[in-house]
This record gives sequence, structure tokens and C-alpha cells, in this order.
Amino acid sequence: MGIRIFITGGTFDKEYNELTGQLYFKDTHLHDLLEMGRSQLDLEIRTLMMIDSLEMTDEDRELIAHQCRHCEENRIVITHGTDTMAITASVLAEKVKDKTIVITGAMVPYKFGSSDGMFNLGSALAFVQTLPFGVYIAMNGKIFEGKNVKKNKSTGEFETINP
Amino acid sequence: MGIRIFITGGTFDKEYNELTGQLYFKDTHLHDLLEMGRSQLDLEIRTLMMIDSLEMTDEDRELIAHQCRHCEENRIVITHGTDTMAITASVLAEKVKDKTIVITGAMVPYKFGSSDGMFNLGSALAFVQTLPFGVYIAMNGKIFEGKNVKKNKSTGEFETINP
Amino acid sequence: MGIRIFITGGTFDKEYNELTGQLYFKDTHLHDLLEMGRSQLDLEIRTLMMIDSLEMTDEDRELIAHQCRHCEENRIVITHGTDTMAITASVLAEKVKDKTIVITGAMVPYKFGSSDGMFNLGSALAFVQTLPFGVYIAMNGKIFEGKNVKKNKSTGEFETINP
Amino acid sequence: MGIRIFITGGTFDKEYNELTGQLYFKDTHLHDLLEMGRSQLDLEIRTLMMIDSLEMTDEDRELIAHQCRHCEENRIVITHGTDTMAITASVLAEKVKDKTIVITGAMVPYKFGSSDGMFNLGSALAFVQTLPFGVYIAMNGKIFEGKNVKKNKSTGEFETINP
Repeated sequence: MGIRIFITGGTFDKEYNELTGQLYFKDTHLHDLLEMGRSQLDLEIRTLMMIDSLEMTDEDRELIAHQCRHCEENRIVITHGTDTMAITASVLAEKVKDKTIVITGAMVPYKFGSSDGMFNLGSALAFVQTLPFGVYIAMNGKIFEGKNVKKNKSTGEFETINP
Repeated sequence: MGIRIFITGGTFDKEYNELTGQLYFKDTHLHDLLEMGRSQLDLEIRTLMMIDSLEMTDEDRELIAHQCRHCEENRIVITHGTDTMAITASVLAEKVKDKTIVITGAMVPYKFGSSDGMFNLGSALAFVQTLPFGVYIAMNGKIFEGKNVKKNKSTGEFETINP
Repeated sequence: MGIRIFITGGTFDKEYNELTGQLYFKDTHLHDLLEMGRSQLDLEIRTLMMIDSLEMTDEDRELIAHQCRHCEENRIVITHGTDTMAITASVLAEKVKDKTIVITGAMVPYKFGSSDGMFNLGSALAFVQTLPFGVYIAMNGKIFEGKNVKKNKSTGEFETINP
Repeated sequence: MGIRIFITGGTFDKEYNELTGQLYFKDTHLHDLLEMGRSQLDLEIRTLMMIDSLEMTDEDRELIAHQCRHCEENRIVITHGTDTMAITASVLAEKVKDKTIVITGAMVPYKFGSSDGMFNLGSALAFVQTLPFGVYIAMNGKIFEGKNVKKNKSTGEFETINP
């Protein structure tokens, strides 16, 4: 069986508006990344929302959990803004027990040329194929347990809470 | 303990010579890729050779096997040209039994902008952290057992020999 | 004699702050662009300010005019934000009579991969070598007289005021 | 009246064949470059051939001259491989007297990410709008008279023959 990818937005998918000079969301770039990576995986991709993760509400997280529980696949990758990624991981760890869920994102928008998104997406899709059931965050080549991770706001890196 | 990366060349690291219009090898781009990917992994990187894998000899493969057996780390990623990647995987599977080795590469040079190298490197570094001892090829998001894989010359994709 | 380049900031030189998700100014990318373009021109480059052109004051424009009048070269390219580029062109047209000044910029930051900055810089450096004394705006391949141009806010393109 | 662009191939338009690892010609990337540069110019684009300039014959050059003489526009940009660009310039200088022709190219293929093609194209399109009738080569930000230029094989740069 294939892998499910849920898109929620985040830095990953931000674009530059030429007229206003602001960053915004239009469409996901995930298909471009998978094509550039020559992915041969059997993937089902669905956009759940396209938002900055600072604006993600409890209801949004309930929706994500619902989609994870009810999709056919038991291997799921979620693209997500890094600011509240750890909160969503914690919620999903409570609500989805019998699936392997890997949340990933990017520090730099894909459209900016030198993005970490390709690297993180490659690692997330590998982790989701090999890890046991559970909720994880894949960033910077590392894997973290979803209940035990936070983003260090001053370095931008993820860290284990109780190592 | 960290992860060892051995560099052998391959499309991954090819450059364009402006004066001759030929592709050639200069230095590896692996450090650039890891920096762009914001890798936080503990990595030891060593260049063993910098060649087109069509020119890789039995002695070269013996050298790679020797280095894999004698390095401290038991998790190893090897960057390699795709043309004979399956041969090297098969040799290593015979000669190195108690380590996790993931061989990866690229169809397009990293310097060409739209390379699959970042995606493959991300997945290889994830697979090497999670898979049991064995020799594997990580390409296009997929993972293959080293003794049981070949490159399809007409599609450029890797396939399991006896699925 | 060579060409003088004055840098004032603008979209051209905006960077993405990974920690805050905001765009900001650090250093100019002009040297990178010239290197990538393999420029063989004799250039003197000086950064006068590094600001969004919406924040440019009358005093800033007086400073730019002063620098244009007093530099040795009589061929000058100015990189500038597009929003108030036409105002600066109009001021310079009043204050600097005996030099060829070409103002250019970009709709998309250079760091975003698909920038128009390289194209505009190439054209500005060509126009400045061939046009008679006067103040001009070079954008989108076109050349406009500095006293007779405005930016169309809805299309992002420059237009002649009284064609 | 608009500007005519004739495409003849050259490094500019070389692609990387993933299966063979060879460089080859498929389609021109000129439309991509013009779109990225947000060109607002009135352009007529026609591909005359798609070859390495080392393979360009006398007949090919006769064809190019014929097309230059008979097209409606009197401002023409030609994209061309750098190796024999000076020869073509010399031939056109003999055969086309009453038009402004600017030949340009690139040292690195556009598809390689860090190409000088955008810079050269921007400058060529500016030079062709401002120079008097004649045949010119625009490379590295500079402009050369077509009868008086050669490529320095060891540096890759163009030079005036009798400065």
C-alpha cells in the first residue's frame, strides 16, 4: 500500500507576491519537488489547508487528526510550518495510535532556490517507510518523537525535550 | 555514534567545464547539499575517489569494502554513479556483513539546478538511521536490497530483480 | 573610463530570514550577479544605502544626486526598489545633467532563484554604455526616460506617462 | 517595430540527458529566460538551427545571413555558440549592411542554474535597441565590433583583435 501525504502549508509553500512584496500561499509546490526528486513512490497527495502554522487552530488540528485516522494508508507524511509543528505532533500522538506519521517542513520557501525542503521531504518519505507506528518530526536529517520535541526559537532547530 | 559518508563521484558531483564544454569532476558538492539541507546530523565525510562509475574497477570496489569494514561507524552512506551502483552494492553485500550501508546517487548533476541529489541524499541519510544491517540502494524515494536490484537502462530507474 | 554602480537596496537585494519568516536586507548580491554573468566590465561599486524604496526620503535622494554629481565616472547604474524608482529618476533628471544614469531593479529578490534581476542588470549595463547623457529607467528589457515614466501598480510594469 | 531573435543553438540551449550523461539539444530555453526576465519587449522569435557552433557550416552561415537580410525587422539578436561566434559575426558584417545585429551566447548552459545566459541576453537586447547599424558581439557585459573580435580559447573571454 502507498503513502499518504497531507499538505497544510508552512514556509515550504510560501510564494513571493511581486506586486506587494509580501509572502503568501498560492498552490503547493509538492508535486514539483517530487518530480525534481524523480520520486517513484506510490503516493496519494491531498491539501487539507494552506496556512501559516502560527494561525493553525485546535479545530484545524482536529481535522488533521480526523483525516489521518480515516485515510486508507497507515503511512502518512504531513508538510507543516515549523513554528507549531511540535504542537500538532503532540496532538496527533494522542489521537492517532496505529499509524506511522512523519511531519516535516522547511526553514526556507521552496521557491527561494536554496531550500531545505527537498532534503527534508526525502528524509520524511524514507522515515515513514521504515519507522514503527508513532508520530514523528523529521527535520535537518534528524527524527524526533512527536511527544518529546520542541523548536528552539533562537537557532531555528528542533531539539529533544528530555534527552 | 555518527554516520560515515564515503564519496566516490558519479553524476552527483559532475561539473561543467566552461572552456571545453565537457562534464568533469572537481570537488564534491556534498558539503553544499548538507548545508542547504540544514543537516544537524553527526557526519564524518571522506572522499575515496571521484570517478564515473563506468570506470570503477574491482580494485576500487575492494577499496570501498575495506573502508566500510574498517571505519568506526556502523552506519554508512556512499554516493556513487548510478550506472554500476548495483554492482558495488552486490560486492559490498558479500564483503560487509555487520553494518548498515546505503548507496545513493543522482540522475542529474547537483550543479544543474534541478537535481534529484538533494532528495536522494535526504532519503539515504534517513534510511541509514533506521534500517537493520545490510546493503541497500536508495533512489527515487525507494529502498532496494543490494543483492537484488538493477538499473533499467531505458528508463533510468532502479528495479527489484526478483520481485 | 569605467562604470560606477550605486546600490540603494530594493527587492533586488532582499533576503529571507529563516527565524522570523520576514524579508530583510543584509548585504548586496550584486557581486554574485556580476560573477555569474562573467562580467568583464571595469566597474566601481559602492553601496549608498540598503533600504526599501518606499522608505526612501528626500534627503536620501539628495545624497544619491550628490554622489552621482561628484563621482569620477560619467556612466552610472543605480540599483533601486521599483516602487519609487520613478520619483528618484525625476529628481536625478533635475539635478544631474552631464552624465548617463540608468536606474534598474527587480520584481523578485535575486535569492529567490527565478529573479528578473540578472536580465535587468545586463540590460542596464548595456544601456549605460550606449545612451547619451540623461537619466533613464531600465526594466523588463525596455528603456524609459526618467522624467516621463511611472510604475503601473496593478501590473507591476513601467509605462511611459505621455507616450 | 519589434526586435527579431534568431536561435542557432550553442551552450545556451544545451540540456543534460539523464540516461546517457551527455549534453544535447532539445528545445530552446529562450522563452523561459524572457519570461523570467519579465521581458515586455515586442519580439519575434525563430529557431533557425539547434547546433553546436563548432559544427556550423558555411551554408548555415549563408542561411543566417539570408534570414537577417529578409526579415522585416532591422534590429536582430542571434543566440550562438561561443566557439565560432566571431566567424559568424565576420560573415554577417560582410553580407548584411543596413541592420543592427547583436550576437550573444553563454559559457554555461541555462539549465545549469548559474548561467551567464540571462545577463548576456539582457545586455544583447539593450545593445540592439541603441547601437547604429552594424554587426556586434555582446558577451560578459561588453560589446565588440563583429569584424574585430576573437574568443581567447584559454580564458573563454572575447577580445578585440586590434585594440
